[in-house]
Formats: sequence, structure tokens, C-alpha cells
Amino acid sequence: MTVTTPRGFRAAGVPAGLKSAGPDVAVVVNDGPDATAAGVFTGNRVKAAPVLWTQQVVRGGVLRAVVLNSGGANACTGPAGFHDTHTTAEYAAGALSSRNPRLLIGAGEVAVCSTGLIGERLPMPRLLPGVRAAVRGLSRDGGAAAAEAIMTTDTRPKTTVATGTGWTVGGMAKGAGMLAPALATMLCVLTTDAVAGTEALDEALRAGCRLSFDRLDSDGCMSTNDTVLLLASGASGIEPTPDELTAAVTAACHDLAMQLLADAEGATKEIAIDVAGAASEDDAVEVGRAVARNNLVKAAFFGNDPNWGRILAAVGTTAAAFEPDAVDVGINGVWVCRSGAAAEDRSKVDLAGRQVTVRIDLHAGPAEATIWTTDLSHAYVHENSAYST
Amino acid sequence: MTVTTPRGFRAAGVPAGLKSAGPDVAVVVNDGPDATAAGVFTGNRVKAAPVLWTQQVVRGGVLRAVVLNSGGANACTGPAGFHDTHTTAEYAAGALSSRNPRLLIGAGEVAVCSTGLIGERLPMPRLLPGVRAAVRGLSRDGGAAAAEAIMTTDTRPKTTVATGTGWTVGGMAKGAGMLAPALATMLCVLTTDAVAGTEALDEALRAGCRLSFDRLDSDGCMSTNDTVLLLASGASGIEPTPDELTAAVTAACHDLAMQLLADAEGATKEIAIDVAGAASEDDAVEVGRAVARNNLVKAAFFGNDPNWGRILAAVGTTAAAFEPDAVDVGINGVWVCRSGAAAEDRSKVDLAGRQVTVRIDLHAGPAEATIWTTDLSHAYVHENSAYST
Repeated sequence: MTVTTPRGFRAAGVPAGLKSAGPDVAVVVNDGPDATAAGVFTGNRVKAAPVLWTQQVVRGGVLRAVVLNSGGANACTGPAGFHDTHTTAEYAAGALSSRNPRLLIGAGEVAVCSTGLIGERLPMPRLLPGVRAAVRGLSRDGGAAAAEAIMTTDTRPKTTVATGTGWTVGGMAKGAGMLAPALATMLCVLTTDAVAGTEALDEALRAGCRLSFDRLDSDGCMSTNDTVLLLASGASGIEPTPDELTAAVTAACHDLAMQLLADAEGATKEIAIDVAGAASEDDAVEVGRAVARNNLVKAAFFGNDPNWGRILAAVGTTAAAFEPDAVDVGINGVWVCRSGAAAEDRSKVDLAGRQVTVRIDLHAGPAEATIWTTDLSHAYVHENSAYST
Repeated sequence: MTVTTPRGFRAAGVPAGLKSAGPDVAVVVNDGPDATAAGVFTGNRVKAAPVLWTQQVVRGGVLRAVVLNSGGANACTGPAGFHDTHTTAEYAAGALSSRNPRLLIGAGEVAVCSTGLIGERLPMPRLLPGVRAAVRGLSRDGGAAAAEAIMTTDTRPKTTVATGTGWTVGGMAKGAGMLAPALATMLCVLTTDAVAGTEALDEALRAGCRLSFDRLDSDGCMSTNDTVLLLASGASGIEPTPDELTAAVTAACHDLAMQLLADAEGATKEIAIDVAGAASEDDAVEVGRAVARNNLVKAAFFGNDPNWGRILAAVGTTAAAFEPDAVDVGINGVWVCRSGAAAEDRSKVDLAGRQVTVRIDLHAGPAEATIWTTDLSHAYVHENSAYST
């Protein structure tokens, strides 16, 4: 049920002492026959060294292995940090090649992903032995251990599988803070034994991310390290149509995204913001994001307060097409606001559960979109004020 | 030391039962001889009824009185809410005219400002008697009571005075949540006995707000009700130069803005973000705002954690001109980040006090700007999750 479910992949997760306890280094290897891949990366202009490296690897067109570590983001570490990433890839390539003399893997075919505190160098004397141990431990059953090794503040590993006709997509992800407008230290590796060229993978991955990870917005904070990779081994011998591939990748991304949402730092509510009646999908997304990022709205939901006025005020900060006196707002099925003013009694709204659905109808067109977010809780403040100390 | 310090103004603040206790209705009257004014209003497209009304009054060019109430924002209340505002202005105009037969005041010369919960109608049977009581109680000493009547979650009234040569500017404000990019339910009334035309007042007020209220950003939430008014009586007989007027108005705005910052909901830190080395002032403001609104940065400061990596990640979300490997970050005088990587030891940063100064040098040009914000604390979450319940 993870990255090793599709044929052609092995993985491992081992403890290397980067975190205080537990596995913290993972390796995922594509044994082929193909080694095509695609990647989606953070939109932050301050990119961690492993992101800069892995973007180059993906552009190179051949991706045979991914090394991932928790316990340190290797972001804002300057040229020395980039050298550390390069060294990690070279070391992994060497270790993999020495165990399989038929296949010489180059550093430029090894992606690197890191997650953890920003601004500190990785402890290479611990990381490299960890990489060696992971390469030694690679197995067809190693997906679960790999998913565990990439956890930071996650309370549980996240894995998924989506099935095609004779081929599958598997995946793992980490991320407890979240994504916006691309991601917030989330890492995700998807694998498939389908036969697929780089272009088909790239299209499927972008489509899959667009309606899943890119529509999660826990706090509007954008990470330096976010990376989503899709590796294809071709081991099934079956080439799905682009639509089939996109559907399976999208299903895998959606499943992992909902797992990220459910495990978001300190959240007590999982909030779906359904925006309808928008003049365009971009408008719907802009409105959804504005509501998702509004601290007053988020704090109100933490307090079980159906404060639709704050929602309307958040909508009012956008440039989307709408008339203030035409907007309807529903919370968990109760239309507390019609035509921009109070409607059904707010006391009818039941916010006792963890799931919240906000519906906003702009009455400005046919487009719609859903953004997922969480509430702003004491636990969020606690986790994020105590993280590095 | 408030709106009644300049000659030509009377004020009052009375309890009308809109809040559970204390004064909640204020009236400020300009007795002239002039009645010029200027106003700055929320940029939110969802504007409260009193904002829509008062914008018209200011455009009319003659402003003789301001009625303010706490205990209800009269926002998202539809046509009925606008009618309530109109009724309030008419009622105040009638009450004022009946007490001074020489001066007939029209409703279109009366501004209305409201603050409190969004989405509920004002209790007019209590508000109108409050307006009558306030008009009866108007006095040259009433400024302090008026400042008290407009408080909501404020823990103390905010008043100020700035002195010209033979004329003064007085002011009062409320606001504990804050302003961004214009305001978050802040109300401010400034008065002056200087002789000044509408255009001079407008220029002075816009300049004064631009570097004060508009650069406070506690949580990025923009209110439906924010209003800053400047009324001139001309009672001193002295017409300052535009520069003199702007300097005094700016000083008054800055003083009130710093009082808002100090009283921000649940804050344990007052944080000045000084951005230097920017290619333009707009770039500097964009960078400062991105840092000020980043929940991870704000939570870190609540935890006394000099987490400069989060600051750099926030800078990376902007479109400002800068190179990631050229940015320096200093916190309370310690340059923890130079050229985009770790520099001085973060343990040297003393965050024990309430005042924090973050300096960000983009090394991309000569422009600079300061944005003021607060931390993200448990008390912020508490106050904003319990507000309307």
C-alpha cells in the first residue's frame, strides 16, 4: 500500500541519528526497466539545496533513486549546504552501483529531499552512514519503513495506492504543516509500474497536484523544501492512456492530501471551503484561499463559532467578481447568510464534529473550486512556538 | 489630550446598553466656524453600512458631527442596516439642530461609525436614545468619555494631541485587532482648529495614514468598518502650510498607531520589521507585510525563538527584487543570517522583552520601510475564538 506496491521499486527507512529517535533516512530505488520521472516543487524563491538539486535531476530525464531525510531541511545553508546535497547524491549513487555491478548509477540520477529545521547544516557524518544502511536494507517490503522515516511532526505515516488495469500507483507523503500556494514542507514520492514517458508523467503529476496538494492551505505559509516526485518503472509492461494515468495519479494525490489535512499541526477541524457561482475557477480559488488563510475565521471555527461575518469580510479582500449584497454563505448545511445579510439562525449550525463544510455562492458565474484548511488552535500556536527550541 | 483639545469641538460618550457595560455611544461635534473634513476608509469590498454612508458625507464636503457606537458593526446587514445608519444620522442632525436654532444641520453632514460584531442589526430603540443623551451631554471636556465609548476589546482608550504654532491636532482611536492593508475594525477621529481646505486635509490625512495605520499589520485581516476621519474647525484662525499640517497629522496618527500596536489582542510582543536595501518602497512594504503575516514567524516570536529561517522563507514568497543568497536578517541587533545562511549564533538573541526589532537587508537597492506587527499567541486564539459566543 505504498511506494513499493508497484513492481520495480524497492525502499528502506533506517535510523541515522538525525532525529532524536526513530528512522530518519529513506531511500527509494527504481529498478526499471524504465527510469522516467516528473517533479513538482515549491514556489518559494528561497529554495532549499535539495530542491535546487532535484530540479536539475528531474530536468535530466532519468531518475533512478530518491534519498530522503527528516531531521534537517538543508535550507538557507549557502553553497556548503548545496555541496552536502551533491555529496549525498554521489554517495548514494556509489552505494547503489557497488551493489549492482550491471547498473552504473550517476549522482545526476539521484534525487534528494530533506525536511526539518531551516538554516542548519546536515550532520553528514551521520547522514552518509544512514544512506549506506538504507541502500543495504532496500527491499520490496520497505515502503512502510520509508514512509515512517520521512515523518517530522506528523503523528502517523501517510501512504496510498491507486489501481489501474494491470498497473498501479503507490505513494508516500509527509507533511503536518501544509501547502500553499504550493506546499509547506511536504514531501511526496509517487511510484508507478506503468509505462509512461516524461511528458505523460509531468502532465499527470501537475493535474494531480493542482486539485489536491495545491488546494490544501493550512496557514498560507510556503515552505522552502516542498517536493512531489513521480517515478515510473514500466515494470507492468502496460502503457495507460494519459487520462487513465492522470486519474490514478490524481486519486493517489487526493488520498495523501486528505491524510495531510487530517494530521495538520494542532488542528481540531478539517474545513472544506466550497466556492460556487464564481466567474472563473481562479476567482473561486482566490476566494477559497482568502477564507482559508484568515486567522479570524480560523480562530472562530476553533471556538465552534459560525461567524459568517468574518467569512464575508475575508471574501471582501479579494479581487474576485461578486457583488457584496449577492453572496450566500452556508456552514454545515445551514445558510446563515443570504444576499450578504443574516438569514437562517446561526444557532442551528452544529460545529461539534471535526468535519466542517463552508459553502460560498458568489452568484457571479458557473465556476467552482474547493480549498481545504484547518482551524487556528492553541495547539497550532504551541507546536509552532516550540518547534526549534 | 483628545478630540476636544483643539478649539471648536465638543464631544460626549454615554452608555446606551449596546454593550453589557460602560459607555458605547459617542458624538463629536465641530462647532466651526469651518466644517471641512477628509476621510480614509477600509479597502474591503464588503463595506459596513456606516462606511458606505460616511464616504458619501465626506464627498459632500461638509462634516459637522460624527456619531460613533461600539457594540455592533452594522456590517452585512443589507438595505435595512443602511436604513439604520441613515436614521441615526437624521436623528443626530435633528437633535443637534434643536439645541442650536442658529444652525440647521442636515443628515448629510453627520458621519456615522460603528464597531462590534458583524452581521447583526443594531438595536435602534437603544441606540437613538443614546444619541440624544450624548448630544445633550456634549462638552468641551467630553473627549475622554468619547474615547472610552468606542472601545471594544481595547483594554484602554487611545487619545493623542499634536501641536502646531497656534493650532493643534487632537485624536482618538479604537482598535485592538488591527489594520491591513487598510485596518481591521479601527476607528479614528482626528480634529484640528487649523484653517484648512478639504484638499489640504485629504493630503495630510492620506500621508499620515500611509506611514502609520497602513503599516500596522497584526493578522492581515481587513475589516468591513475601518474609518479614519479628520475634521477642521478653523477656530484658531491660523492656516498652516501643507507640510506643517501633514507633520502634525502624521505625528498624531503615528502616536495612535503605536497605542493600537501596544494594545493588540493577545499580543506578548511588539515587533518592528525594518526592511532596508529594497529596490523600491513598494518592495520593502511587500516584504515587511509577508513577514508580518506569516503565522510560523509570529508563533516563533511568541516562543522566544529567533527562527530566522522562517523569516527568509516568508521573504521568499514575495515578488520583491532580491537574491536569496544576498539577504541579511538581524533580530534585536544580532545578525543571525548573512548572505542567506546562518551567521551569528542565534543563542545571542535576547527575546525576553516585549519589543522586537527585525532588520531585513535585501541588498537590492536604496529603499526601506517599517511594518509593525505582533506575535501569534495563545491569548490571540482565545480572544478570537470566543468573541461572538
